[in-house]
Amino acid sequence: MPDMPNESRSRPAFLFDLDGTLIDSVYQHVLAWREALAGVGINLSVWKIHRRIGMSGGLFVTALARELETNLDADTLRALPRLHGDAFLRHYDSVQPLPGARELLATLTEHRVPWAIATSGVERYARLARDMLELPADTTFITRDQVKYAKPDPDLFLTAAQRIGVDIRDSIVVGDSVWDLLAARRARALGIGVLSGGYGREELIYAGAFRVYEDPHDLLAHLDEVGVRRPL
Amino acid sequence: MPDMPNESRSRPAFLFDLDGTLIDSVYQHVLAWREALAGVGINLSVWKIHRRIGMSGGLFVTALARELETNLDADTLRALPRLHGDAFLRHYDSVQPLPGARELLATLTEHRVPWAIATSGVERYARLARDMLELPADTTFITRDQVKYAKPDPDLFLTAAQRIGVDIRDSIVVGDSVWDLLAARRARALGIGVLSGGYGREELIYAGAFRVYEDPHDLLAHLDEVGVRRPL
Repeated sequence: MPDMPNESRSRPAFLFDLDGTLIDSVYQHVLAWREALAGVGINLSVWKIHRRIGMSGGLFVTALARELETNLDADTLRALPRLHGDAFLRHYDSVQPLPGARELLATLTEHRVPWAIATSGVERYARLARDMLELPADTTFITRDQVKYAKPDPDLFLTAAQRIGVDIRDSIVVGDSVWDLLAARRARALGIGVLSGGYGREELIYAGAFRVYEDPHDLLAHLDEVGVRRPL
Repeated sequence: MPDMPNESRSRPAFLFDLDGTLIDSVYQHVLAWREALAGVGINLSVWKIHRRIGMSGGLFVTALARELETNLDADTLRALPRLHGDAFLRHYDSVQPLPGARELLATLTEHRVPWAIATSGVERYARLARDMLELPADTTFITRDQVKYAKPDPDLFLTAAQRIGVDIRDSIVVGDSVWDLLAARRARALGIGVLSGGYGREELIYAGAFRVYEDPHDLLAHLDEVGVRRPL
């Protein structure tokens, strides 16, 4: 019955990226990577780090090695995540929730719209973010350590959809980076871009964003555009 | 004689922005502004600060006040530049020249192509940058304090062209931000965008960039595309 409307698809679920999408932490992560790389003698331009934030750490390092036209030794590779983590925590004081993040998630919960968070970050930061966003302890958080491949592979979002019992094809991925949007397309979800991670609007559109909003506050104000009906 | 080729226009002069164009300092400036604003109780999303870096401080504060829908009192306004300066110097350790910056400027000098640097920053930082880029003491540096209005007003670039004795209409402005490119168009110069300040390529094109390169190294590799002839 191909003409039957698909009831479930008219009620989307939301799968959120974390850094740059719900919390304002991208620039701190960027400078922390800059410091970690400098700590092992690698000078990479900061904008190039910015444009790779949110992709899997493994792919980041592979891309880095290609950029530098050098092979990084195993000890250096092992040291980088710890150096980055230490530097990030030095910058953590200035990390805040993005405008509207708490209200957006609370509104979805109130209207029984399923949602989850899926991040290329590790569990340690996810817990910090959960506290910062004042989320219930049972919030579904898929982190790097729970999947084999991080973004732009679709595993994080596929796992998140499965965990909250929704079809990925009825889901909307919300993210600030091209990696989120590429992962969304590979998973056959719709992608919504937010500018709050510092990518340009067109970069997100070219990566396949269905819509682009400024930040969670702006998405909340336009939920009707993306299939969430809220009676007055 | 409208068919006569314009001899001077076939030999462009170059007017460079500094932060994000020749030195890799944008992200440090961004977080320094984040810290300065937090110091006076203002929480502004970091990406919004990023997108205003490089514009005149006065316009930045005006835009900020509009964004916050509040009037900032005079004491707060006066404190901000000092708070930003102090925070920037805390981050200064990680600032580096951008790849190819020194080589690009040396190549232009070698080929007798006139050039100057014009920055919305203050003289204090310009001196730090001159040392970092190992530039001659007589390098032409136009700073914020030498003109009435900073970018996106064209004054900085107009003054730079005048100082090195070139017609602004024969000049190419090189910058990382939309403010550089808007100022270039207002001055009737050509604008070249570089991605090294963290704007997206299309943002720079939409602001009127004639060409967009990754960074000074990439521009150096493509000087022939923008009118600089270098015999083999």
